[in-house]
Amino acid sequence: MAKIVILGGSFGGLTAAFELKRLLGKKAEVSVVSDDDRFVFLPSLPWLIMGWRKPSDITLSVPEILKSKGIQFVHEAVINVDADSSKVRTATKEISYDYLVISTGPYLSFDEIPGLGPDKGYTDCTFTLDHGTKTHESLEKVFESPGPVVLGSSQMVSCFGPSYELAFEIDAELRRRKMRHKVPIIYLTSEPYLGHMGVGGLGNSKRFFEDEFAVRDIKSVVNQAIEEVTPGEIKLKDGTKIPFKMAMVAPPFKGVPAVAPLGNPRGFIPVDKNYRHTKHKNIFTIGVAVAIAPPEATPVPTGVPKTGFMTVKMAKTASATIFADIKGSPPPPANDLDVICIMDMGNTAAYMKAVPVLPPRQESVTKKGVWAKWLKLSFERYFLWKMKHGLSGLP
Amino acid sequence: MAKIVILGGSFGGLTAAFELKRLLGKKAEVSVVSDDDRFVFLPSLPWLIMGWRKPSDITLSVPEILKSKGIQFVHEAVINVDADSSKVRTATKEISYDYLVISTGPYLSFDEIPGLGPDKGYTDCTFTLDHGTKTHESLEKVFESPGPVVLGSSQMVSCFGPSYELAFEIDAELRRRKMRHKVPIIYLTSEPYLGHMGVGGLGNSKRFFEDEFAVRDIKSVVNQAIEEVTPGEIKLKDGTKIPFKMAMVAPPFKGVPAVAPLGNPRGFIPVDKNYRHTKHKNIFTIGVAVAIAPPEATPVPTGVPKTGFMTVKMAKTASATIFADIKGSPPPPANDLDVICIMDMGNTAAYMKAVPVLPPRQESVTKKGVWAKWLKLSFERYFLWKMKHGLSGLP
Amino acid sequence: MAKIVILGGSFGGLTAAFELKRLLGKKAEVSVVSDDDRFVFLPSLPWLIMGWRKPSDITLSVPEILKSKGIQFVHEAVINVDADSSKVRTATKEISYDYLVISTGPYLSFDEIPGLGPDKGYTDCTFTLDHGTKTHESLEKVFESPGPVVLGSSQMVSCFGPSYELAFEIDAELRRRKMRHKVPIIYLTSEPYLGHMGVGGLGNSKRFFEDEFAVRDIKSVVNQAIEEVTPGEIKLKDGTKIPFKMAMVAPPFKGVPAVAPLGNPRGFIPVDKNYRHTKHKNIFTIGVAVAIAPPEATPVPTGVPKTGFMTVKMAKTASATIFADIKGSPPPPANDLDVICIMDMGNTAAYMKAVPVLPPRQESVTKKGVWAKWLKLSFERYFLWKMKHGLSGLP
Repeated sequence: MAKIVILGGSFGGLTAAFELKRLLGKKAEVSVVSDDDRFVFLPSLPWLIMGWRKPSDITLSVPEILKSKGIQFVHEAVINVDADSSKVRTATKEISYDYLVISTGPYLSFDEIPGLGPDKGYTDCTFTLDHGTKTHESLEKVFESPGPVVLGSSQMVSCFGPSYELAFEIDAELRRRKMRHKVPIIYLTSEPYLGHMGVGGLGNSKRFFEDEFAVRDIKSVVNQAIEEVTPGEIKLKDGTKIPFKMAMVAPPFKGVPAVAPLGNPRGFIPVDKNYRHTKHKNIFTIGVAVAIAPPEATPVPTGVPKTGFMTVKMAKTASATIFADIKGSPPPPANDLDVICIMDMGNTAAYMKAVPVLPPRQESVTKKGVWAKWLKLSFERYFLWKMKHGLSGLP
Repeated sequence: MAKIVILGGSFGGLTAAFELKRLLGKKAEVSVVSDDDRFVFLPSLPWLIMGWRKPSDITLSVPEILKSKGIQFVHEAVINVDADSSKVRTATKEISYDYLVISTGPYLSFDEIPGLGPDKGYTDCTFTLDHGTKTHESLEKVFESPGPVVLGSSQMVSCFGPSYELAFEIDAELRRRKMRHKVPIIYLTSEPYLGHMGVGGLGNSKRFFEDEFAVRDIKSVVNQAIEEVTPGEIKLKDGTKIPFKMAMVAPPFKGVPAVAPLGNPRGFIPVDKNYRHTKHKNIFTIGVAVAIAPPEATPVPTGVPKTGFMTVKMAKTASATIFADIKGSPPPPANDLDVICIMDMGNTAAYMKAVPVLPPRQESVTKKGVWAKWLKLSFERYFLWKMKHGLSGLP
Repeated sequence: MAKIVILGGSFGGLTAAFELKRLLGKKAEVSVVSDDDRFVFLPSLPWLIMGWRKPSDITLSVPEILKSKGIQFVHEAVINVDADSSKVRTATKEISYDYLVISTGPYLSFDEIPGLGPDKGYTDCTFTLDHGTKTHESLEKVFESPGPVVLGSSQMVSCFGPSYELAFEIDAELRRRKMRHKVPIIYLTSEPYLGHMGVGGLGNSKRFFEDEFAVRDIKSVVNQAIEEVTPGEIKLKDGTKIPFKMAMVAPPFKGVPAVAPLGNPRGFIPVDKNYRHTKHKNIFTIGVAVAIAPPEATPVPTGVPKTGFMTVKMAKTASATIFADIKGSPPPPANDLDVICIMDMGNTAAYMKAVPVLPPRQESVTKKGVWAKWLKLSFERYFLWKMKHGLSGLP
């Protein structure tokens, strides 16, 4: 019986667990190791920040889900991976594996920029449930006592969507409250231009965001790296100072320390087209933990985003490959990764599609419409329902 | 009985006179002092220049209007204001006041740029009835003997609308005459980009004007200050020379000399939210004479426009405040200033709305449509009818 | 009987021959001298390159056409023109003329850039039937074994349309073949911005091409001159290197050597408004051979395009002028040149109109629509039918 250990209990980890159990049944012992026993539907965190969702609306219990499927759950943090002896260590356990699936997501590297972050710094963050809850409180304070809001991404970020969404959502909410004119909104980013999103743009996304921001009076400051943050002020590397009442700034991304030694200098892990480690053949990596080279060097370094949608696709490919490996059959064909994402814009939404993710592309679309908003609202419910019932994610 | 003296007989002066008389009736003696006994509907001056209006179409007699309302008219230029002793001096009179309302508009400071202006220089101007009449003649000469037309604004201008209108109108008229290809049109401006208009743009106005100019073959030269004008040539501070057959260039704006000592170094007068002088509590200032800080410093200095629409709103607030002051009641709440303006484009028009005037805004719109043209045509008639009957201006 | 010699058997040469014969009948002896006995409908060469046309679809026999109209054909290359003694020399003949019409088109000056061109270099070309046939083969190889395609124009080019068309057509074809993501398309040009086309743009052409390229993932590199080409790589003057699997790059244009001594340093011939040589009154020049000053100097030198449409119009004016000259009547009025062109975009097309060709213009349009595609398809058939029957070209 194959022992399969999965690190991480979010999009990638759970999907891989479901897929491997579905494919292998009793032929495998599947375990998920995570220090967080909650599955959070991360795409809804901007809505939580806006006060449009409660934590319980977008959270599931990981052990409950896994139990019903006969998957083990180890509620502990991984300390390190010994790839040579195929073992994972936690504070209390040493777990050996035949196959390891790493889906540990990003390490939010606030420390690289003095004053950044909600814990030791002066900025808010939008990437975890706990940060989101705190950020919601900060936003409520802005509604009570208005002042400039800065949204955006520091250098070496590889996830731009939520900051764009929040810019649109906060704009829409302020207009609803008839107080938009009291809150300057500044979108600050390491992207070389609006709509770059770490992938060199997507169709006419540059013009799209420029126009949408102009119509909404959202100012942009592009192509910038942050030097430091002091209370109420962001200082850029070029010396510019941007005052803020509230700032939600994505920190540099790195690989999670426990698995970083398997990866490149920033801890992202190199894989082949089937998400198999380029050196350790029984280790697979999916999601943000994967190293993907950017399509072009940007003046300020940025990374390629790996969305939940992409991560689920990676999880399926990796699982099918492990299944083939165990059966002794050839690995499934590895396709170029494509992506669909729906960006909320407060009172409307945008549908974006890229096939493949990186240019040049067979297909690329950026389209706006209320139908996209409805699609986004429905998908949240659909995906959470699937996860709750141990079904892997996409249609 | 309160003695109220109003300086200026245009949008602000007349509206304030009507409002104060309406509110105070026999409790106040209201006088208007102006060296010009004509009320000119200034928004129609571009049409006068185009030959689409005669002076009599857009002019009313100020003494006639005021007489029927029991308001005095002093047809003299103000020489100075003695704020400490509350007196206004003209060539023949010394008029004491309890309240003074300054609505003297801009001083067109042609002297700051050698060769500028219709009197001592080589360029035309679009801001007064007499200048407009002369400019119309210059334009007729271009139609007879075509050559390059330059339209625009020098440094320290705070009124960009008419130059944009004339660019569109001249383009449309030349096409009607099938001679557009014989007349290059150049829009020269101190604005940092097209559509800035002294207010940091308005919705997607940058893209709007760039596109509309491109489609109409109107060239733009932005972010420029003028060094000097010689016959047939404008020399910019950066050394560029722009030849012209006809040039309509707005001069730097200053405060009118008689009231300038009450203001900042350029003679614009600082006021609180109720348009009350920050130091002299019985002096109010409205319209172009008011000092409004620009929303952002521009590389070449520009000012915030104060349209007739805004001036009428200011006049109402100032009048209500004086009324409250006399009654001993608290001043009316002072709202952020907003603005609606309709820009003629020759064969169509654009509707622009900003709430408030300066960003960030609760609402901002730039929309094009023939309906806006009809609205502009009707509003001219409606406003002149109201003024003629001593009714203050807006709906 | 007037002896009229025409150099060139393409759009200009044939139209002039037909027109002069129609006007003068037996009063003139008209000869066409050309080293190529084929008339090629050049606007369809991009379709030939795409494999959507065979050479026979777009080629007519010049001697056959001319014979039926009683026009002589000399199938020889011109060696030089002796303007003083009014004689044209070929390898075997010396032909005297009363009037000479030069319509020799461009000399493709590959030698000015090391490594450029299909004969001695590494790039393909889109301007002649033979080059087009070879280029089609290169493109087939890209479809078999994909890699980056570069399209565009080197310095001193004055014909940009076909490169734009091919960018759109190749994009469309690759999508049809579901392999667009395997072929980066780069549009490289000496134009200062997209949509300049050697004429300072045409309506909103800059924005039009920027948007259309963005939506189609076509990258652009503008305002560039080429230093040299090595196998698989273009080196720009600014040091940038652009790798390619296939590159179709328009070479610098010059006048054809045999007539170049009559022209400016690059061999283009100066004419008056009736296309009469500024010095030699019995020599006329039409089409690409004519010297037209660009509307504005561009950082990298570019030229004004002279399309088939324009060349046919020039041929008619020149013919009417010769006819008037022979009759002793005043020359016909010379109009500003205008142009209509339809740019294929693969699955749609754009209609462009400029009256006159150079700005400022009475009329300028860039419009997209499938109707334009149908118009282009029909016009090809219509024009070839007219030519075949010895009727001069436009409606």
